[in-house]
This record gives sequence, C-alpha cells and structure tokens, in this order.
Amino acid sequence: MEEKEISQAVIGRLPRYFRYLGELRDDGVERISSQELSELMKVTASQIRQDFNNFGGFGQQGYGYNVEHLYREIGRILGLDKTHKFIIVGAGNLGQALGKYMNFERRGFLFCGMFDLNPELVGKEVRGVKVQPMESMAQFISENDIDIAVLTVPKTSVMEVAEKLVQCDIKAIWNFAHVDLNLPEGIQVENVHLSDSLMKLSYNINRYQKENEQSE
Amino acid sequence: MEEKEISQAVIGRLPRYFRYLGELRDDGVERISSQELSELMKVTASQIRQDFNNFGGFGQQGYGYNVEHLYREIGRILGLDKTHKFIIVGAGNLGQALGKYMNFERRGFLFCGMFDLNPELVGKEVRGVKVQPMESMAQFISENDIDIAVLTVPKTSVMEVAEKLVQCDIKAIWNFAHVDLNLPEGIQVENVHLSDSLMKLSYNINRYQKENEQSE
Repeated sequence: MEEKEISQAVIGRLPRYFRYLGELRDDGVERISSQELSELMKVTASQIRQDFNNFGGFGQQGYGYNVEHLYREIGRILGLDKTHKFIIVGAGNLGQALGKYMNFERRGFLFCGMFDLNPELVGKEVRGVKVQPMESMAQFISENDIDIAVLTVPKTSVMEVAEKLVQCDIKAIWNFAHVDLNLPEGIQVENVHLSDSLMKLSYNINRYQKENEQSE
Repeated sequence: MEEKEISQAVIGRLPRYFRYLGELRDDGVERISSQELSELMKVTASQIRQDFNNFGGFGQQGYGYNVEHLYREIGRILGLDKTHKFIIVGAGNLGQALGKYMNFERRGFLFCGMFDLNPELVGKEVRGVKVQPMESMAQFISENDIDIAVLTVPKTSVMEVAEKLVQCDIKAIWNFAHVDLNLPEGIQVENVHLSDSLMKLSYNINRYQKENEQSE
C-alpha cells in the first residue's frame, strides 16, 4: 500500500540509484552516507533522503546506508527480483539491436519472440529467436506469459500494432516509435523517443555556440 | 540573449511540440489554438502558453497559432535549420542500428564516420560508412567538422573514449553507455539509458499488479 502514491518522478530516479549502488557494491563498498552518495550522484542529500523516505527510508542507521541491503531493496521495488518476458514487434535494425542486447537479460528481462508485418523478414533469426508473422502474436503472448512488447515498428503502423497488443492483454509496452501512445489504463507504457533526445542535444549545441559568439 | 535562461525542462518539451506540429502541418492544419493543442498533447493550455512565452509567445493572434510558422520557429530554436555531422563510436549492434537509422538524416543529422576499439570490426561497412580504428578519430573529427559523437561503447571503455573526445574538442556527446558522463562545461551531453527506462516499466508493471491483487 505504501508504494501507491509515489510520483513517476521518484520512480524515474530509482534506476539511477540502483545503477550507482550496483557499482559501489561491485567495488566492495559496504556503507555509504547520503552525503557521500549525494556527491557521487550530483544530487542533494536532502533529495536522496526524501526519495528514500517514500519507501520507509531503508533504515539508515549510524553511519549511512548498507549498500548491499539498499541495492537489493531498490531492485525489489523495481521488480527486478522477478523475470519479465518480452517480445519485439518490428524486426528492423533497432528491433534486432535490442534483441541482441545482453544487458537486459542480466536484469531479468528475457527476449522470447519477435514479430514483423513484413513477410520477407519472417524466418530470420535474431539471437536464436525466429521472426514470426503478426498473425501468430496473440497466441504466442498468451501461451508464453509475455509481459512486455517492445515496439520498434514505423510510425505509420504503430497504432494498428498497439491495438492488437491491447487485445492480447499485454501488460506493458516499451515504445520506440515516434508517437505518444494513449492506451487503456491497465497497460503500462514507457516511451523512448530517440529523435527527441537528439533534438535536445542540437538545441544545447546551438545555444552554447550563440552564447560564445556573444561573449567574444 | 532571450533564450539564455530557459530551463532544460522547457527544452525537453520542445521536440514533442515540434513532433505534433509537424503532424498537424502534414495533415494540412493551418491554425490551432492553445486549447486544441492542449487536448491533443494532453498538457494544460497554460503550460503551453508558459512554454511558448519563453520564446516571445510565437505571435498568437486572433484564433490561435499559425501551425507552419510555429513549426518552423520551434525547428529553428532546436537548431534543426542547420545540419549536424555525427560519428558513432562503438560499432556493436546498437551503434550499427543507429547508423542505419534514416530518420536522423531527415532532421539534418548526418552520419559521417564510425570507430571501434576492436580491430576485428575495422573495415566493416554500415550504410556506406567504414568502421575505422580509434587512432584515426581525432584527425577525422577535425577534418570533417564533426559536432556530435554517439557513444555506444561498453561501460568499461566509456571514460577512456569520452576523454579522447574531449581532447578532440567535440561539441556534443549522445551517450548510450550506462554511465553518467561528467565532462567539461562546454561539451553538451544527452544520456539515453535504455535499461533505466526498462526498469521504470518493470516497476509500473509490478505496482499495477499489486494494486489489483489488493483490490480483489
């Protein structure tokens, strides 16, 4: 119950804590204060304490947090103590690259199936997984307890595919198409809009250049 | 000068405005009110007006904004009226997928070179661009006016590569490695941490599941 009201902003910061704590643990660090973690992560110590208080504070006692405990607790909150099975819909370059990406497996995300609208890609193999036609998707999802669909289809077919996935009772969609998906409430969506990120970079390059020209 | 104080939060929203306005334009829409844009984008009209006021408001007159004008102005602010040349450092699956991605070119981001630490990948061709050894990178950047380096190297070599790029006076780094880069102030960095996004999705799947179990 206590996890119910937590804002997506706090949730969005948890993976970063998890990443830093994993590195500290790998480096053999046993305890860390919020002040030290603050310096390492370049966020304020009060932000860290506020974030952690959402989850009961993780029992900071005496000198700081127990790194191993904190790492495991945040992993559990993120659901990384369970495995999640995913399929990739869209077997183009990005879909194939994500299928081959081993790091997801390390975190318990298992690449189980791949689908494409294009019959020419059907039968192609990506890390031992054969591309199947879209018609086989519904049955595959239900028979294999698939949680997540990774969407790497072109913008033009994304709504059609998303609607099919809704009918299949998919739990979550990780969307790489350049469209914001508005789906029924029960389906979790995370958008990765690569072009948006690149445009932000472009803005910052130009702003910096302009500032420098003005100060010359 | 007026663009100087704008927060990264506002900048982060500009590409999304640009995306929606581009679609409206393609659909032949000429004018749109902030209220209509608000309903379409699912943000408040006051947020839209506040965001746009950072850039002088874009001359909303009578009935709403001129779509074509707004689209072009936001594109100009994002620096999309100029071309940006980029190289990809790290010729693995993700690097290759990004190299093959044509949409970036449409926005004026030109894929010019590719580099890898692994001699076995040198000579391989990705969309007409040959993978070169790291030793050739500095000269290539200065001779070809490269603005952006896309970093798709493993976590273990990212700092070494980033330091080389700093020495090459690269303007910006688009970082896909799971490390937060802390670089000198003049270098713009955008991080795309795919695993962080996937973990957030995992959290939301589990939270939704828990809520539903409780309410049953």
